[in-house]
Amino acid sequence: MSHPIHTVTHIDAGSHARCGLLSLPHGTIETPAFMPVGTNGTVKGIYHEKVEQMGYRLILGNTYHLYLRPGCDVLESFGGLHAFSSWKHNILTDSGGFQVFSLSKLRKIKDAGVTFQSHIDGSRHAFTPEKVVDIQTIIGSDIAMVLDVCTPPDIDYRAAQEAWRVTKLWAERSLIRRDENGEKFRGCLFGIVQGNFFKELRKESAETISAMDFPGIAIGGLSVGETPDRFSDFLAYTTEMVTPEKPRYVMGIGSPDYILDAVANGIDLFDCVLATRTARHGLLFSDDGPVNITKAIHEFSSEPVEPTCGCTACTQYSRGYIRHLFKAGEMLGPMLATEHNLMYLHTLMERIKNAIKNNSFSVFRKEYLARYYGEKKNV
Amino acid sequence: MSHPIHTVTHIDAGSHARCGLLSLPHGTIETPAFMPVGTNGTVKGIYHEKVEQMGYRLILGNTYHLYLRPGCDVLESFGGLHAFSSWKHNILTDSGGFQVFSLSKLRKIKDAGVTFQSHIDGSRHAFTPEKVVDIQTIIGSDIAMVLDVCTPPDIDYRAAQEAWRVTKLWAERSLIRRDENGEKFRGCLFGIVQGNFFKELRKESAETISAMDFPGIAIGGLSVGETPDRFSDFLAYTTEMVTPEKPRYVMGIGSPDYILDAVANGIDLFDCVLATRTARHGLLFSDDGPVNITKAIHEFSSEPVEPTCGCTACTQYSRGYIRHLFKAGEMLGPMLATEHNLMYLHTLMERIKNAIKNNSFSVFRKEYLARYYGEKKNV
Ligand SMILES: [Zn+2]
Ligand SMILES: [Zn+2]
Repeated sequence: MSHPIHTVTHIDAGSHARCGLLSLPHGTIETPAFMPVGTNGTVKGIYHEKVEQMGYRLILGNTYHLYLRPGCDVLESFGGLHAFSSWKHNILTDSGGFQVFSLSKLRKIKDAGVTFQSHIDGSRHAFTPEKVVDIQTIIGSDIAMVLDVCTPPDIDYRAAQEAWRVTKLWAERSLIRRDENGEKFRGCLFGIVQGNFFKELRKESAETISAMDFPGIAIGGLSVGETPDRFSDFLAYTTEMVTPEKPRYVMGIGSPDYILDAVANGIDLFDCVLATRTARHGLLFSDDGPVNITKAIHEFSSEPVEPTCGCTACTQYSRGYIRHLFKAGEMLGPMLATEHNLMYLHTLMERIKNAIKNNSFSVFRKEYLARYYGEKKNV
Repeated sequence: MSHPIHTVTHIDAGSHARCGLLSLPHGTIETPAFMPVGTNGTVKGIYHEKVEQMGYRLILGNTYHLYLRPGCDVLESFGGLHAFSSWKHNILTDSGGFQVFSLSKLRKIKDAGVTFQSHIDGSRHAFTPEKVVDIQTIIGSDIAMVLDVCTPPDIDYRAAQEAWRVTKLWAERSLIRRDENGEKFRGCLFGIVQGNFFKELRKESAETISAMDFPGIAIGGLSVGETPDRFSDFLAYTTEMVTPEKPRYVMGIGSPDYILDAVANGIDLFDCVLATRTARHGLLFSDDGPVNITKAIHEFSSEPVEPTCGCTACTQYSRGYIRHLFKAGEMLGPMLATEHNLMYLHTLMERIKNAIKNNSFSVFRKEYLARYYGEKKNV
């Protein structure tokens, strides 16, 4: 049996929000935690040392991308992704399932595994649940994910049921391979709940995956294009079915409003490319909602993006200068915006943890969202 | 009369190479000095604080680009480029002449000035020598350049003579406008030597501009596509004609071999986009010559780009990882390469200054180039 890795230290009096400590091979981290995404072994547009200085101790890498490039032979020769990318702290890798189903072409699913074509060069590849555990063993992931079958939000019950059947089968085989790999596998293997948007399947999946020998549980198949209400409904419903004894991770959550929703339901971990991707397009988080820095209104502004933020963009530069960088197509624009959005989310997580510890999370959330969704001035 | 701003502290025993101190409004800098180029008020791909930490105290901005974007109204409202871009040290701005002649369309030169079309949006603009001094007054340049007529390397004597006639006329008018601007103009206005590739014109231009009331002299019209031998010949010839009493600046010099050539001739300042532009394409300086980091030979290399370099790329990452970043199109590749090339050149300038002070510059140059041009192994 996997030993417990997550200790809940406080539960908010007025919600399911909780604080905890997650014990991982490269150090313990406080939860709830947002994870920056480093698809190719680098968080786009920022030095690892800045990510570390902000306080992040757990970032994400993508198994699908890293398997295709630089490839397992390179990663193995460097002794894994930590050494290759000079990141001293924890790394979570996804299973590649989502990318196989969203990026690659000509995929075919059988019980044995999935075959697909690389989005980079069209070359043919196959993932089996065993192979995906092996790849993450080579990567040296602190948190590894099982291969699962990802489905779009509009399929019928029979298709969702079939996807969940295969997901369950693969979960079982992943555990066997993890144990076969013995000490070579140094991380924590998380199971993934699926079941599409059918409550009956969600319940079965959440209970089944919870009961299996995974030290942590991910909730997959949400934030895939459904409406915010449907997301919120299914997130709440599914999370309640997942054992509170294990850390809960929900994929694809990265804006302040969705983060607050996830935390309220008792989610401990989340990640999303949104913070860094929208940053590169000039959208910066603020307490007054996202700031589109490319707008003309900022041209002469000597104000910082967010006066309470301690990042380089906010402490050293004006909205007017950052707007100029974006208009001129200068790399420093996306670099500063990336740093800002990651710093903003890290600070937001600190505020959230404090609110939980003070049993005032619901009040904090309500007040935060009132301002976030409120009348936008000069943003 | 402008007061002297450059003190020569040492002249190498075996060449014209010299060390000096250049006194500018935002602090004194040691010469010879390489200046990183920050066309749009940012050195591409790197934080100003990193440029500063490396030891750079003088960077370049482009008058033509800054005039078009963000524009003088924005720069004026921020109190100049230093405040706008949060750069606390010295800024040199070129006159925009070179850009008008290389980037813009439909340019027409008259004695009054030059009209041209923006390369950004096709809008029509006019530069006069007076206006260019005024723009640089708004920018707050520590070193400002006069508007000059730039010519390609293949024109005939009459055309070169005519370009020099207008350049001289504009130089005279620039000085008048500088003095008219009084205390509003806080920088040092440099004259520019032209004369194309005709020694008679070069001599006349160098002597004429040297004798005018400029505190510093730039040598223009070199490194414009001519052969290395012709460059070297005309650089040596022209520099000797320029008064040694004033700092000498040559534009468009940024690779180790050209820098060594310029220093040997007694040049004190140079700039080039090459260091940062080639970095973004994966070409990194090393003592063994440029390293093309995208080559397959680096795929499994755990070696640093240049073991003697103290930059982030060389101290924290391997050739294999940096290659991976470039192959994956990750921003961190160009960011690390930019930091490396600027750090490498800063360190090279330190080595050059030490060699001059030890009267061993010629030996240093010879040994450096033997290795730089030598048999390339693993690069
Ligand atoms: Zn900020
Ligand atoms: Zn370096």
